[in-house]
Amino acid sequence: LTGERVGAIIVAAGAGERFGGDKVFAPLGDRPVLAHAVAAFERCAPVAEIVVVLGEANVERGRALARAMGWVKTVALCTGGARRQDSVREGLKRLSTCAWTVIHDGARPLVTAEMIERGLAAARRTGAATAAVPVKDTIKVVGPDGLVVETPDRAALWQAQTPQVFRHDFLLAAYRETAPTVTDDAALLERRGIAVAVFAGAYENVKITTHEDLALAACLLRQRG
Amino acid sequence: LTGERVGAIIVAAGAGERFGGDKVFAPLGDRPVLAHAVAAFERCAPVAEIVVVLGEANVERGRALARAMGWVKTVALCTGGARRQDSVREGLKRLSTCAWTVIHDGARPLVTAEMIERGLAAARRTGAATAAVPVKDTIKVVGPDGLVVETPDRAALWQAQTPQVFRHDFLLAAYRETAPTVTDDAALLERRGIAVAVFAGAYENVKITTHEDLALAACLLRQRG
Repeated sequence: LTGERVGAIIVAAGAGERFGGDKVFAPLGDRPVLAHAVAAFERCAPVAEIVVVLGEANVERGRALARAMGWVKTVALCTGGARRQDSVREGLKRLSTCAWTVIHDGARPLVTAEMIERGLAAARRTGAATAAVPVKDTIKVVGPDGLVVETPDRAALWQAQTPQVFRHDFLLAAYRETAPTVTDDAALLERRGIAVAVFAGAYENVKITTHEDLALAACLLRQRG
Repeated sequence: LTGERVGAIIVAAGAGERFGGDKVFAPLGDRPVLAHAVAAFERCAPVAEIVVVLGEANVERGRALARAMGWVKTVALCTGGARRQDSVREGLKRLSTCAWTVIHDGARPLVTAEMIERGLAAARRTGAATAAVPVKDTIKVVGPDGLVVETPDRAALWQAQTPQVFRHDFLLAAYRETAPTVTDDAALLERRGIAVAVFAGAYENVKITTHEDLALAACLLRQRG
């Protein structure tokens, strides 16, 4: 990746409806959830700049956190949009032109610099890569009537996580057009026929959605420490 | 369910390859993993009898545990087979004729009596029901080349868990025929055209596969207590 500029967008603008509050500012160990996620990117050598996308009410709080943590690569904190993909679009506007862009959920605090580097390596294959882990449980397709429609073969199923890594030009092109609501950025590139490579995430790279998830993350963090 | 006999099969015969040992006998809080799972069934009023299926090397250990824990509904401990479904078949041979049979993974210690009762209620709809929770992460169908094939709509996807509850005659019929390897019992009934209803499991109803999962379960158990 020598000479190829890497930017990162950390999306933390979700309303936290299921959490009942600003989950990315909830304390986890010695600092807020978001600070763990950003720290992994600050530590990851190839990453040159970071944009953090926050809810409108949290931008000032984010600035105070940036000062307290001494983030040096974090060049902008901006306000997100209604949907996750609207927030990514806002982040893209603030990012310099890069060769590669890494997108990460601010609510996944247990990401590591090594995982980000794995993503950068994997993305060279096709220009797009997502962290993922094999699904452990049997997955059912369930109809609106609450009855099982189908049990797809588990061996082919992976749970996507972030980080996701993309050629910056691929990502810009995908975000230039109007797209349906998607649950991850990789899906926007898939729609355009770009192959997305899978690289090893980690089961402990949990997304904090509920208070139970936060307790889990605290537990995992203590184990790691 | 008045007057309808309910039997339970708790499957704990897995080799624990990923765990590197007998995960169902690993300590969790004040007792082995398996003892938590069995206790929920012992406490669940509608359940009349329980069969526990163990690896060949563990049957004596299981008997000692049954005595130590004072299980009163557990009528048999038997040896399982090569695949999960072979173990269920062995369990079925030991169970009395019941109206309803509940199947549960011995490696899911955080099941509750309430969850089992929800399953018994749900199974009345079609004769078959599985505990499940909505999938949180985006799921990818991944090809053998490690590239994403498809991103199915997350809104329709659920992670199946156990307990799973079946009309005993439906289950016997499904196990009478030779079937391909499946990852859960509900899939065997689906193959026969029987509709399977979904009822609320719980995210904390984790399956212990790795040592990390055991640490998580310990954490969740402390939170509960």
